Amino acid sequence: MSASSPERLAEWVNASPEARTRALAKCLETIAFKDPRIHAWVQINPQSATDSGPLSGIPFGAKDIIDTRGLATEYGSQIYRGRVGVEDADIITELKSRGAILLGKTQTTAFAYMTPGPTRNPRNVEHTPGGSSSGSAAAVAAGMVPLALGTQTKGSVLRPASYCGVTGFKPTFDTFSMRGVLPFAKSLDTLGFFTHTPEDMRVLWRSLGRDSDGAELSVLGAASPTPTVDVPMARAFNESLVMLQQAGLTVRFINIAGMLSKLADAAHVVMCYEAARFHQQRYEEHGDRLADLAELVRSGLQIPESRYDGARRHIDACRQKMAELFQYTPVIAVPAATGPAPNGLGSTGDPTMNSPWTALGTPAISIPMPVEGDLPLGLQLTAAHGNDALLLRAAERVAAIMAAA
Amino acid sequence: MSASSPERLAEWVNASPEARTRALAKCLETIAFKDPRIHAWVQINPQSATDSGPLSGIPFGAKDIIDTRGLATEYGSQIYRGRVGVEDADIITELKSRGAILLGKTQTTAFAYMTPGPTRNPRNVEHTPGGSSSGSAAAVAAGMVPLALGTQTKGSVLRPASYCGVTGFKPTFDTFSMRGVLPFAKSLDTLGFFTHTPEDMRVLWRSLGRDSDGAELSVLGAASPTPTVDVPMARAFNESLVMLQQAGLTVRFINIAGMLSKLADAAHVVMCYEAARFHQQRYEEHGDRLADLAELVRSGLQIPESRYDGARRHIDACRQKMAELFQYTPVIAVPAATGPAPNGLGSTGDPTMNSPWTALGTPAISIPMPVEGDLPLGLQLTAAHGNDALLLRAAERVAAIMAAA
Repeated sequence: MSASSPERLAEWVNASPEARTRALAKCLETIAFKDPRIHAWVQINPQSATDSGPLSGIPFGAKDIIDTRGLATEYGSQIYRGRVGVEDADIITELKSRGAILLGKTQTTAFAYMTPGPTRNPRNVEHTPGGSSSGSAAAVAAGMVPLALGTQTKGSVLRPASYCGVTGFKPTFDTFSMRGVLPFAKSLDTLGFFTHTPEDMRVLWRSLGRDSDGAELSVLGAASPTPTVDVPMARAFNESLVMLQQAGLTVRFINIAGMLSKLADAAHVVMCYEAARFHQQRYEEHGDRLADLAELVRSGLQIPESRYDGARRHIDACRQKMAELFQYTPVIAVPAATGPAPNGLGSTGDPTMNSPWTALGTPAISIPMPVEGDLPLGLQLTAAHGNDALLLRAAERVAAIMAAA
Repeated sequence: MSASSPERLAEWVNASPEARTRALAKCLETIAFKDPRIHAWVQINPQSATDSGPLSGIPFGAKDIIDTRGLATEYGSQIYRGRVGVEDADIITELKSRGAILLGKTQTTAFAYMTPGPTRNPRNVEHTPGGSSSGSAAAVAAGMVPLALGTQTKGSVLRPASYCGVTGFKPTFDTFSMRGVLPFAKSLDTLGFFTHTPEDMRVLWRSLGRDSDGAELSVLGAASPTPTVDVPMARAFNESLVMLQQAGLTVRFINIAGMLSKLADAAHVVMCYEAARFHQQRYEEHGDRLADLAELVRSGLQIPESRYDGARRHIDACRQKMAELFQYTPVIAVPAATGPAPNGLGSTGDPTMNSPWTALGTPAISIPMPVEGDLPLGLQLTAAHGNDALLLRAAERVAAIMAAA
């Protein structure tokens, strides 16, 4: 690994200790140069537990709803400004135990809901980086760190990955302990990772002791883009499918637009119902200082239990249907966002392309597609529950085909 | 110079080129570690003109109302977000021509008026760093850079220096060209510098080819603190005077509280009148998007010319009186601020301890006094028009006495 390109996790794990030390210094230099413009970080304060392990010396950032002992854990909220974490979340402990260095905390929307933090998109600072894992996506995209942690309740990992042009991966629901991660809607909340490439992600997966021997991709299901997808995204998606077909993959178009739309609606009901109850006490304490979250609590508490139960039953039924579909097409491709990162920092964009898969709990990954111009577009791939290794290998293959085309 | 303490400008100028390079890397590392918390910088993007000169390889930050070619020059205003400077201001050219490296731009309140930027006080991040030269004071205080540029129309250099515990120096009015510096009130606007110590400031002064052979301090005039000064500041000020007397200086108490108060009022009238006219066109274009500046334009335009002329005449008369007073006590000490940095980031504090001296155009410097606790307090020293060398030498002596006490 050259010290001048410390972005790639896959290169870090094969580098000498000296090269890792140089690369870490390069990360800090990049942060010094770029963070005053990008605002990806809440705090930099390196912490490590051991020098050995497959991730030895590799720095990572953690979204600021993830508890970290002795470091800021402010939930992206003015109300918790100055709050210091009391205990490392389990995922922090796991990464540290494998040698990784917690470099610091990354910006999040308030409580991982809608109010944006200060983070800007490194590809074009006039545009949102997406959210809620805004700082983690931007830090990786800007070359500040080769790995960062996020969470996704609707589309908070894959959407910012798509907007920032990096790889974002949400493993199968419940793969990692959520202890120490501030909940939003517990039946949806999922840990996720940002790296530069799917190869990096697979190396991470292996370094975490997970199975990474997926079958080779030969058949890809492709959902037709829905009307919510804008022209640049629909065009890039279709052109990517053409590339994959030309490279010998079988692409089967499947019509799941209706199911995905209803799933997104059901996921929204579940999220509002659970988040309102989780944040109710905070709302009673802080009221309208919670801004959009206050409104969510008020409206979410109006949702009758019967409607919540119905939404959960609908999601369960869809899980059955999707399990059958995945037998036919083990990997399914859809756009990772409705379009490129919107202009302005007032909103972090639309999560509806991701929320169905978060509700289903299937693993999902966003990888950058070839684009003209400075605003990236992500391709989202998903696979059946537990088929993370298959998905990661497929993503690596798809990325290689698109890079060669 | 050790690479672990690159704060002191006086050490940089005597260091080897290799040590300067190491110290520059250390500055960038410090920025990476601290700026996500402090937000001193708008942009980091090193620029140099020559490798030789007395300031060779020494990095500095420039307040973001100072034009810099190819770097952000956004005036601390959302309206100018994304604006890139077209030409280096004369002071930038002068520093670069002596070998200094423009490291980047520092945060300012909007248009160097009241709306605070994101910068926090490095001594206690819950407190304001002061303003309007917020980022420059904080960057030096945090050890990110040994030198930074600010401007002062009322108290925008010496007050943040006092709040952040660094040395802030405003030379005699009109010593440096203001070309390329966004005006606020042209008869008051003055360039200023931040360094760690008065020794650093004197080294800078010499490096800029200015006379630094002032006479030795023996008599100090001391203004009795006014009621606007709070208890911690009054106590620290009086204790400092005791230390100086014990070290052999003659301290003469002088009663200028009434004159200073009327001078502050006159300076306010002049500022409002001039700023309203300078910003009038901007106000017609952007209206209430200028926030507090819009209100200033509306009220400032109501000031009749006769009142403005009266205020200027009053200031002229005070200049005469003060010139006589300086013959009797060549250096005068007053508190550099009304107290320690206020809690919160909503206001950058009260400039009334500085604005009389800005209006008079006399050189003024703030140096840290010994304090208990984490919030610094500055001692302000002033001298007659053009007596910058005398003032710098006096400040170095006073700092040495306080350090030894």
